Amino acid sequence: MASMTPGADPASEHETHIDEWRAFAPLELPPILAAALENFREHGYHGTSVRDVARRAGVSLPMIYYRFENKQGLLVALLESAMGEVLQRARQADKEADGRVLDRFGNVIECIVLHMTHRAATASLDSELRYLEPANRKKYAALRKALEELLLEIIAEGAAEGLFEVDSATDTTRALLGMCQAVTGWYHPDGPLTPEDIADRYAGIALRTVGARVRPTPRTPKM
Amino acid sequence: MASMTPGADPASEHETHIDEWRAFAPLELPPILAAALENFREHGYHGTSVRDVARRAGVSLPMIYYRFENKQGLLVALLESAMGEVLQRARQADKEADGRVLDRFGNVIECIVLHMTHRAATASLDSELRYLEPANRKKYAALRKALEELLLEIIAEGAAEGLFEVDSATDTTRALLGMCQAVTGWYHPDGPLTPEDIADRYAGIALRTVGARVRPTPRTPKM
Repeated sequence: MASMTPGADPASEHETHIDEWRAFAPLELPPILAAALENFREHGYHGTSVRDVARRAGVSLPMIYYRFENKQGLLVALLESAMGEVLQRARQADKEADGRVLDRFGNVIECIVLHMTHRAATASLDSELRYLEPANRKKYAALRKALEELLLEIIAEGAAEGLFEVDSATDTTRALLGMCQAVTGWYHPDGPLTPEDIADRYAGIALRTVGARVRPTPRTPKM
Repeated sequence: MASMTPGADPASEHETHIDEWRAFAPLELPPILAAALENFREHGYHGTSVRDVARRAGVSLPMIYYRFENKQGLLVALLESAMGEVLQRARQADKEADGRVLDRFGNVIECIVLHMTHRAATASLDSELRYLEPANRKKYAALRKALEELLLEIIAEGAAEGLFEVDSATDTTRALLGMCQAVTGWYHPDGPLTPEDIADRYAGIALRTVGARVRPTPRTPKM
């Protein structure tokens, strides 16, 4: 985003290479983080011990302490990598729309919902963020905030152009991000809807939420 | 609801007396459940032991086992009492609108958001429901489903009357309930917005989501 200096970009340290924001290869996490993720999902943050993670990952305890310091470090790494990835994708999705506000909005919502489904395992860890220590929480909040600001800017722009009708761009942004986040609560890979189905439907629902009557230009065919 | 036989009503065993769906007295839980709630919130389900709850509540361990069987029983009691309460309130809110679909919809959304804020502590336990054992999960899902069906029926009715415009009443219902549920993730009693402010704003946002252009009749003044 032009308004941010590169050094201050909270996503910069989580850069991974993303070719196409709609294309999701299976998530590849380092074995320690993959094991931590499974444990957090099964037993929650407080129900997980670093010893369990070491056992599951097949590494020594000191190795985990060396790489991640402690259990908190594992949660931080997982949350930040997920949020960093969706932020990168959302910026790409936004850019692709080339300034057309309806497409920017549709792309970004689609992208966020694709993340909540294709990356449901890490995305659903968001409910564990209350266990972050204050400094880590602040850092994670900055990443989240960047995503919120991207969407807010688009909604405000749409309202300014007279394409959207909202009472408050801030409230609507928060409501829409909550709507997307909640998908992780019910989405199941074996369910009847694919991530692409859900993303498409949510983009339509979100367009009504911002009072848009015009549908955006047709999207490229789904993969 | 007329379509349900009284015996089959999943809310019936959670009846508490509610005078006015908009009025929330502070939540009064039996001491054991109040202690369990605090522990679950601080340490998560798996991070909580029945021993911790007994200590906090100042009761003996056998007393908890006698009353709630085990830790699972504590979570079930909390989740069901919260969902039972919101369901009762939502039905009252719906009834009050006397069949006017815009008011029914506005009231029910307002009611759900009031629950997510005034009852944030119990409502946010929803993220722990993945730890419910299958039979308990099924029972809780039935309560949730009843709320979903109430909202779905209103949206479908609004669409049938030509007042709402949605692509799918089912998708929109799920999206809106997710939007409301997500409020528990950021709401704070010391924040700048009161539960009534948030409920009012979300009712407005939700009206756009269902494509309603007409605002409902003014609501009674907030308490």
